Amino acid sequence: MPYTLQQLTEFTRDIFKAIGCNQKDAALAADVLLRSDLRGIDSHGIARLSGYVRLWEKGRINVMPNIKIVHETPTTATVDGDAGLGLVVAPFAMQVAIDKAEKYGSGWVSVRNSNHFGIAGYHALMAVEKDMIGFAMTNASPLVAPTYSSERLLGTNPMCYAFPAGDYPPVVVDMATSAAANGKLEIAQRLGKQVPEGWIQDKTGAITTDPHALKSGGSLLPLGSDAEHGSHKGFALSATVDILSAVLSGANYGPWVPPFVAFLEPPSDPVGLGIGHFVGAMRVDGFRPVNEFKADMDNWIKRFKTSQTINPLQKVIIPGEPELAAEIDRTKNGIPLVDAVVKDLNDLALKFKINPLR
Amino acid sequence: MPYTLQQLTEFTRDIFKAIGCNQKDAALAADVLLRSDLRGIDSHGIARLSGYVRLWEKGRINVMPNIKIVHETPTTATVDGDAGLGLVVAPFAMQVAIDKAEKYGSGWVSVRNSNHFGIAGYHALMAVEKDMIGFAMTNASPLVAPTYSSERLLGTNPMCYAFPAGDYPPVVVDMATSAAANGKLEIAQRLGKQVPEGWIQDKTGAITTDPHALKSGGSLLPLGSDAEHGSHKGFALSATVDILSAVLSGANYGPWVPPFVAFLEPPSDPVGLGIGHFVGAMRVDGFRPVNEFKADMDNWIKRFKTSQTINPLQKVIIPGEPELAAEIDRTKNGIPLVDAVVKDLNDLALKFKINPLR
Repeated sequence: MPYTLQQLTEFTRDIFKAIGCNQKDAALAADVLLRSDLRGIDSHGIARLSGYVRLWEKGRINVMPNIKIVHETPTTATVDGDAGLGLVVAPFAMQVAIDKAEKYGSGWVSVRNSNHFGIAGYHALMAVEKDMIGFAMTNASPLVAPTYSSERLLGTNPMCYAFPAGDYPPVVVDMATSAAANGKLEIAQRLGKQVPEGWIQDKTGAITTDPHALKSGGSLLPLGSDAEHGSHKGFALSATVDILSAVLSGANYGPWVPPFVAFLEPPSDPVGLGIGHFVGAMRVDGFRPVNEFKADMDNWIKRFKTSQTINPLQKVIIPGEPELAAEIDRTKNGIPLVDAVVKDLNDLALKFKINPLR
Repeated sequence: MPYTLQQLTEFTRDIFKAIGCNQKDAALAADVLLRSDLRGIDSHGIARLSGYVRLWEKGRINVMPNIKIVHETPTTATVDGDAGLGLVVAPFAMQVAIDKAEKYGSGWVSVRNSNHFGIAGYHALMAVEKDMIGFAMTNASPLVAPTYSSERLLGTNPMCYAFPAGDYPPVVVDMATSAAANGKLEIAQRLGKQVPEGWIQDKTGAITTDPHALKSGGSLLPLGSDAEHGSHKGFALSATVDILSAVLSGANYGPWVPPFVAFLEPPSDPVGLGIGHFVGAMRVDGFRPVNEFKADMDNWIKRFKTSQTINPLQKVIIPGEPELAAEIDRTKNGIPLVDAVVKDLNDLALKFKINPLR
């Protein structure tokens, strides 16, 4: 039996309040987190709630942060998240970018001293609502090896670009820069299945199909999988996310990014503050009238959607379509949770004396 | 025997002057084109000179363009290239972006009605010289099939991000969003070699290793190669380049992009003007002091360069390193050209009555 969005949102909000967030931050953090479940990205949603709580227990999340701009020009800024929830820090930063774009055409914000920000798409879509193009990226715990390396030096560092359209829904590119997301490995682990070659390597750097290799010192591979198929490009994209998010803001980068899991200690020799994000917004009408842009976006989408396909039953998928389909389905039919997640959440409920899920 | 940079630059400048470019534009176009040869990207350099001339002969390149801003805000602009050489239009657009960034922190320019702009790295590096982060992208002739499609709907649409560093050279990410560049296929064709699975498909969409498949209706594949290895991400990146470059500016997008080769006619139902680019610049000191950023860039580069590798003899390659190594080598030792290119250039010399190369 799936849960309703409202039920899970209230539950999540109550947990965030229980650890000390104010009403507004708790509601925002719950909204961001549940948007991930709604959009079908189960790995980044409520399943992570207990992870955030454990980070708070370790003193690594500040639930009453003083989030502020520490450096700026009319169209650029660095925001310090004061070790707050990324779920709260990133929307603050995106709002700064949008405000600057409203005045000057574009706005760009690099963020330091933050934590995991949920799905990048949430933040980029804030700009789309204002007829802007939205950008959102974040660095993350090191799990990916650069081409030729046997070390985990980069996160799955997602990039998101979101574009408003007219009659069609927005085009939302929201992708990890690794060949496969960690969530896909976890599914294979649960099912006891091998994974395809090109997703991971073992701790020596040898190719493997064992989904458990990551836990024994192996690495995810960059998009492209191997040098012959362009993995240096996936590495370069991941590096771009890391530099814009962390070198530019003064956050930790590369192997110094603090791990999301609380049982691993952050490196003892940090090179910056917390993890980093990079967000931006550009007004469409800074380039051409919005109605002209949207008409061409619709034509672009239509042409690609109706293109000839190898298998007539498998159409071309426009970036953002699967997530939107999930959002429509789950808004109507509810959000399914696996038993392990429900148990994890109800342990939290017990600990913080709030009503369990069932 | 390799040729000197000066020799090839003068030759190229003379050809551009011969077709009607003024002295300044001819010198700039030659500088951009030769920078590609210098950086080892032979496919985008002087080997294309006769291609530009053939486009001019077809009336598709305007050698006396009135390049102008047609729409702008303090930090955004759309530039119309008036069908000029992309080699001249893109530096104009980048200068607009840099000027805006100097005043407001960042500048972003979408370009329509242009032609092929050489290597993206040239343009992005203009920003790096000013202690800015440079962005450059362009759409291109359709050669790449989206995931699941058997149609060529996108170009190899490169993305470039360039970051200044301190003691180390800049980090320059300059990559086609396809699994393999077209230039690599051409090398395989010349050598009569098969290419790896995952670079191309034939006209039915079936996997093939025949490098000639592209010429008989096949397609290049997006970065990621197949759905299981994330080719939808390569498709999404290529779509991002197409939208920022062309839907945003009012250029042709997707399958409507006019082909670079003059023997193919542009689509008879254009959706915009010429091809599109997107360039941008952000001042580093719009985010943090330049010296702090550069110190962290150096630390980032050093950590990745010295990371443990699978094969001790194959170090991790920092984005931009191979191109810089080529630039240093070829500046000193000259630029080698294959015989077919020399013959092609000397046919031009004969036609325009300028001194042949040898």
